[in-house]
Amino acid sequence: MATETPLSGSIADFPFKDSAPFFAEERKGWKGYVEWEKYPEKKKQAAETLAQYKFPHPPEFQLEPIPQQNPLLEGVRWKQYHYAMGSTLKDAPEISWKYVQKEKSEDMLHVLQFPYNGEPPRSRLVETELTNNKDHFVRNHGGIPEIEEDAFELELDGLVNEPKNLTMADLKNEKLFPRQSTVVSIQCSGTRRIEQIHEYPGDGDELINAPWGEGAIGTARWTGVSLASVIKHCGGLKTSSGHPETEMHVELYGADTYFKKGQVMNYVVSAPWRKVKFDEVLLAFEMNGDPLPRIHGFPLRAVVFGYIGARSCKWLYRIKVIQGPSQAPVQKKEYLYYSPQIGKHNAMYSNGFSIQDMPVSSAIMTPLDKEQIIHDGKITLRGWAYSGGGRWPEWVEVSADGGSVWYKVPHDRMSKKYFYGWRVWSIDVPVEYEGWLEFCCRTWDCALNTQPTFVRSAWNFDLHVTPLAIASRFTPSIARDLLQRRD
Amino acid sequence: MATETPLSGSIADFPFKDSAPFFAEERKGWKGYVEWEKYPEKKKQAAETLAQYKFPHPPEFQLEPIPQQNPLLEGVRWKQYHYAMGSTLKDAPEISWKYVQKEKSEDMLHVLQFPYNGEPPRSRLVETELTNNKDHFVRNHGGIPEIEEDAFELELDGLVNEPKNLTMADLKNEKLFPRQSTVVSIQCSGTRRIEQIHEYPGDGDELINAPWGEGAIGTARWTGVSLASVIKHCGGLKTSSGHPETEMHVELYGADTYFKKGQVMNYVVSAPWRKVKFDEVLLAFEMNGDPLPRIHGFPLRAVVFGYIGARSCKWLYRIKVIQGPSQAPVQKKEYLYYSPQIGKHNAMYSNGFSIQDMPVSSAIMTPLDKEQIIHDGKITLRGWAYSGGGRWPEWVEVSADGGSVWYKVPHDRMSKKYFYGWRVWSIDVPVEYEGWLEFCCRTWDCALNTQPTFVRSAWNFDLHVTPLAIASRFTPSIARDLLQRRD
Repeated sequence: MATETPLSGSIADFPFKDSAPFFAEERKGWKGYVEWEKYPEKKKQAAETLAQYKFPHPPEFQLEPIPQQNPLLEGVRWKQYHYAMGSTLKDAPEISWKYVQKEKSEDMLHVLQFPYNGEPPRSRLVETELTNNKDHFVRNHGGIPEIEEDAFELELDGLVNEPKNLTMADLKNEKLFPRQSTVVSIQCSGTRRIEQIHEYPGDGDELINAPWGEGAIGTARWTGVSLASVIKHCGGLKTSSGHPETEMHVELYGADTYFKKGQVMNYVVSAPWRKVKFDEVLLAFEMNGDPLPRIHGFPLRAVVFGYIGARSCKWLYRIKVIQGPSQAPVQKKEYLYYSPQIGKHNAMYSNGFSIQDMPVSSAIMTPLDKEQIIHDGKITLRGWAYSGGGRWPEWVEVSADGGSVWYKVPHDRMSKKYFYGWRVWSIDVPVEYEGWLEFCCRTWDCALNTQPTFVRSAWNFDLHVTPLAIASRFTPSIARDLLQRRD
Repeated sequence: MATETPLSGSIADFPFKDSAPFFAEERKGWKGYVEWEKYPEKKKQAAETLAQYKFPHPPEFQLEPIPQQNPLLEGVRWKQYHYAMGSTLKDAPEISWKYVQKEKSEDMLHVLQFPYNGEPPRSRLVETELTNNKDHFVRNHGGIPEIEEDAFELELDGLVNEPKNLTMADLKNEKLFPRQSTVVSIQCSGTRRIEQIHEYPGDGDELINAPWGEGAIGTARWTGVSLASVIKHCGGLKTSSGHPETEMHVELYGADTYFKKGQVMNYVVSAPWRKVKFDEVLLAFEMNGDPLPRIHGFPLRAVVFGYIGARSCKWLYRIKVIQGPSQAPVQKKEYLYYSPQIGKHNAMYSNGFSIQDMPVSSAIMTPLDKEQIIHDGKITLRGWAYSGGGRWPEWVEVSADGGSVWYKVPHDRMSKKYFYGWRVWSIDVPVEYEGWLEFCCRTWDCALNTQPTFVRSAWNFDLHVTPLAIASRFTPSIARDLLQRRD
């Protein structure tokens, strides 16, 4: 396959050790999937293998402007982790990049080349209420397992009365499971992180995560079956006085390989039973009417409505009902929100809050920052507004003067309401003068929550969740009639 | 009946017309209840009666400091509405006041004498996680119907397959309905309205609603039965292609009489079916283990979890399943949230948003505003934090300098988490100097929503929902050692 953009951090430069291990693929028809969670000894061997190498120090950018290149970051370290795992995973970076070329728009902004993180061009994202699959942001945590649909099985175990394996044919059998189709926005908690990075670059030795802009959000009509009905099919929850329903979680296993501090594992997260019960956890096999793209989790992924994207596990191959939240590192040691008093000197996994429901947020997508505009007394702004947890954005306001005077987006310039979907909006803001304008936006959701005003109000050590109202577009504007008088 | 505090706006001064009507009580054992909703001709007659009188102009305070008296406001106009309705309702103000004396603490702040609106003393409210029934705030909209439990029937009709009447014995029959007991905070959307009034007194001719402080919130363990199971008992919803489940609401009827712009009606509101389905609408007959006090809705009230208090209909005697939200005035013309661009010149019922889910909010309860404190290097603050819609407050921060430096309330100084309940908290804030301190607090809920910073960010025409972080306690503090050196 011809890729026009070369993959940097190539395998050719990687100093393979003689002892490169061989980790067999677990199942026929499942390429790039190694089962780690069931084999502690295999995990141990993988960790020992990693320990033999010296990988580049994270992160790859610090205290200097983010390079104006695409990809922004290469992920050399993560590529090398996969190279080191031997023949089964060494091609993961190459395969991932192949699917970026094939399944995503050419002009994506590649925030991180591998694991692939990408967001679409700002202006196009809000042209449609449902995001084109090719433009939907991607935040992968490893490679892309290539699983044949016919070979696929979903394993359901843990605290269910009748553990079962289900094929895709079972899941698509409408006699077994009613089809559910729901419009859901998925948002990475890193959305707009770049604004936190700009204001708080840190001391230069923290781990700064991927520098997302406003495009780490997308909306699709996801089709599949409710996990609630699948668990019912498995005889329901195995509850007891010691295991009440209210404390149960569903642990979701992804077939990709994940690395954390020298350890090797599958991607594992969880969501509370409460979400499942309310039909808010979908096992999705279609995205906007098309089969799920491989880069988005083919053949099956979870979509956990209103939650941080990280819970919507891709290449979902196992669901285990457990007591309490998952103890897996992605759940317990990643995607933590620290209160503003906590920084690198006192941050501990245990004093971070595991992000689940997403707060109200919004963003201006056009005009772009520092875009020069010649106007006739008004400037059109476009953007999105979103809130998690089943709360729709009720209205949006914009300001052209940094937040003194706010205009409300007209009702008919906002897209339809959904419980779990964003709304895209546009407004023509009156502008009487020329000069620098500071555009900003804020939204209220149906619970009347609104966004805090300043980055300062929401800054947090891991730079998650950036829902502030102010901090947006500086636009040099020129009134057309003034321009003509000058000519 | 001995009441120590006299009831002002007495019936003795009311110029009864000869034509004072007689509206019969509907049912034996139901005192002070007139059924309006089933009898349009009776409503018409009542409206004609009201039209004969000239009532005092609302509101009763404007553009001047709220009087330092208790009750703050008398509600003379509302008393007179009831007097005008003739023998059946004329004693409603007197009866209401009787129950205030009997069922509420002596030192309640009576925000409005009739319909009774009252909040407890600030410091006591946060001494306990569950509010004592005598201290729980009250926001009534009319009189207090005196209904004998044995004579009570709840009517279930509308879009259910088997409309039924249920007695209290039916509802308490655990063979018919499993008992549900849930800790729920109920909050009036007027909480902290006084802060909006202070900053935006208006032009002097708007209707300014009751000037609530921080005490229009209370928490109880409510016991009763889930409305979901009651509707199941009535054969479930009568759905059809034209009436999908997703669009249904439950309309809740209160036996109190409500007045709106010269019209007379019962208190009627609604909540979406979605809330019922998730077991978030309770028909409650116990409050903290005691029978519901009359002032809180005896023998039966709704408790709609996480919503504005106005939906938790008291003296609930009828539930009608309908398509879409209730068209009744309390639902459509009251408790509207207007965006900040809307004021008295452009406010219309149709451009307000009907408040349901409550946003994240918090308040400092002690020290009191302008309370002088002699400290030894720290000052203890106490308060509450709450968020609606099933979201618990995750943490609270306080500042002693108007929001520059924030301290996080220690984990062990916050009360237990509940999906639908507040958390009370306390913290010892380090204070090194003497002089005026500006204390403020803010909270994050589990969806990481936080409060907007300034009153200006949340001001709205009807002065509902005041969730701002800054705007709290100015406290003159004196360091003890400085004081000693002066002596």
